[in-house]
Amino acid sequence: MAEERLQEFYDEISEDLTRCVQFWLTHSQDDKYGGFFNCIDEDGTVYDETKHVWLQARQTEAIQMMDRLIHWVREDDTDIRQGRPPLAGEARSESLAVPMMLLCVTHELQTLDPSLCARYRDIQEWSVQKALSHVQREGTVILENVSTSGTELPGSLGRLMIPGHAIEAGWFLLRYAKQNGQDELAQKAIDQFMNGPFGRGWGDECGGLYYFLDADRYSPVQLECNMKMWWVHTETMVAFLMAYQHTRDGDHLDTFARVYDYCYSNHVDKKRGEWFGYLNRDGSVSMRFKGGPWKGCFHVPRSLLYCKQMMSELLKRPT
Amino acid sequence: MAEERLQEFYDEISEDLTRCVQFWLTHSQDDKYGGFFNCIDEDGTVYDETKHVWLQARQTEAIQMMDRLIHWVREDDTDIRQGRPPLAGEARSESLAVPMMLLCVTHELQTLDPSLCARYRDIQEWSVQKALSHVQREGTVILENVSTSGTELPGSLGRLMIPGHAIEAGWFLLRYAKQNGQDELAQKAIDQFMNGPFGRGWGDECGGLYYFLDADRYSPVQLECNMKMWWVHTETMVAFLMAYQHTRDGDHLDTFARVYDYCYSNHVDKKRGEWFGYLNRDGSVSMRFKGGPWKGCFHVPRSLLYCKQMMSELLKRPT
Repeated sequence: MAEERLQEFYDEISEDLTRCVQFWLTHSQDDKYGGFFNCIDEDGTVYDETKHVWLQARQTEAIQMMDRLIHWVREDDTDIRQGRPPLAGEARSESLAVPMMLLCVTHELQTLDPSLCARYRDIQEWSVQKALSHVQREGTVILENVSTSGTELPGSLGRLMIPGHAIEAGWFLLRYAKQNGQDELAQKAIDQFMNGPFGRGWGDECGGLYYFLDADRYSPVQLECNMKMWWVHTETMVAFLMAYQHTRDGDHLDTFARVYDYCYSNHVDKKRGEWFGYLNRDGSVSMRFKGGPWKGCFHVPRSLLYCKQMMSELLKRPT
Repeated sequence: MAEERLQEFYDEISEDLTRCVQFWLTHSQDDKYGGFFNCIDEDGTVYDETKHVWLQARQTEAIQMMDRLIHWVREDDTDIRQGRPPLAGEARSESLAVPMMLLCVTHELQTLDPSLCARYRDIQEWSVQKALSHVQREGTVILENVSTSGTELPGSLGRLMIPGHAIEAGWFLLRYAKQNGQDELAQKAIDQFMNGPFGRGWGDECGGLYYFLDADRYSPVQLECNMKMWWVHTETMVAFLMAYQHTRDGDHLDTFARVYDYCYSNHVDKKRGEWFGYLNRDGSVSMRFKGGPWKGCFHVPRSLLYCKQMMSELLKRPT
């Protein structure tokens, strides 16, 4: 039973969070021109000085999260506590149109200023309804793209499933449902957005969640469809730990443990910090860098931080 | 020695060309609305009815090629001879800005109407010079992107190498050089555009040419960098067979045989026709379809046709 491993999970994740934050603080800041380098090789070498704007925004968001939650970083990491770079003017987060991103961003804003809860209620309710419109085929699939009237679109585009996105939306929805006492929504988030896509997306042969799937089991047309992506697994860890925290159903912790074991066997670089983001179908490392045009300082620290927090609460109240 | 296998190559390629053309004639034509379906599963099922415009153009080009060279299709394939769909108005080829495409298109136009040779000379000479400006680092690499003044660009973009593109440009250049009696250019095409990229791009462990490489051996940032692509191998077959035909150096035919063996072990579907386009690094099939948004009726039949022609000439004049 995975329950017996809670302390192990907590310790490993805490160490990893420290390594990860240290990695970005050491290698990512551009002391000369400001902003962050985000194309960083496995050993910290900057292999491209391009500053991709959305990763600047995401790293700023991660730092803001770190600022709020700095006490979660290990007590003896004074260099991390002191090394946090200044926030002002470095980058500005874009407002994204998709409902899951609106749910995420409004939550972050509310956490910064609880008085904003009422103001964002409409946006959040709209986002929840929009997210639920992606539940298709009598609740059996989450489709990535639906028509504006909430029906399935034709062709590969319409049949596209991204298990990682669905599961990530799942924990945004579960968090919202818990905060607003919506039990039915919480159950939908777990059953339809987490369990369904996980069951469909987990690779039985080699482990890991597939990046893209076709609802009718054709080959997806995205060339990277069979890859195993770090952010898919970081979000799945958060989702199933949150589901366990909410329900205390050991199956969810077992699923968490399965993903955790996959990540710590394949993604994590214990020696130099941060995760290898892009794995081949068989779990081997495809690209050795830690940062690139679409991988920055965001998903790994956010997931580790949230997992650490939840673990800590679970360890205080074991059952 | 691969020379002894010329008849085997010829027979196999001839059969494959017939299967391939038959596959598209059977499954691709839209009898109701015109144009071609190009998203076609391994068994011929149309899995998406979208008609991607550049594949419409390419398929039209392939049919035009077929029309010109119809006698290369086996004598007994009367259904293919009669089944060729009409050309007019179905799709129109775009004029592409990259020099290799200009070399290719002007060649095709000249073949249709030899009186156009003089008119296109300037474009072709410009294209050759532009192509040669991609030879960088003292002739040791072909970089995919260079500045307009012909120097290396910074970062991952500047270091990007696409062996398949370089080798494809190689046979365009070699063909041009042969037609215009430019021996030095022919040698450059073989040494710098074919041999160099092949040596750098061939995967020693699993075979096949990598899709993307970084000139400084960082990981490329394109997620599909490690995949093995059909069009890379079809173009490499044409290139090295042409190099052999031009030089009669057995090493080139050995390289052809290496690629041929890889293709006929991994890409070719002898049962149902056409090739599996997208292989994982290890050669296993990643996506099972025969046609998709970026794979249509073009590279496979063109390569098989050109290889068949060259084989036929080689078999007539063995040494």
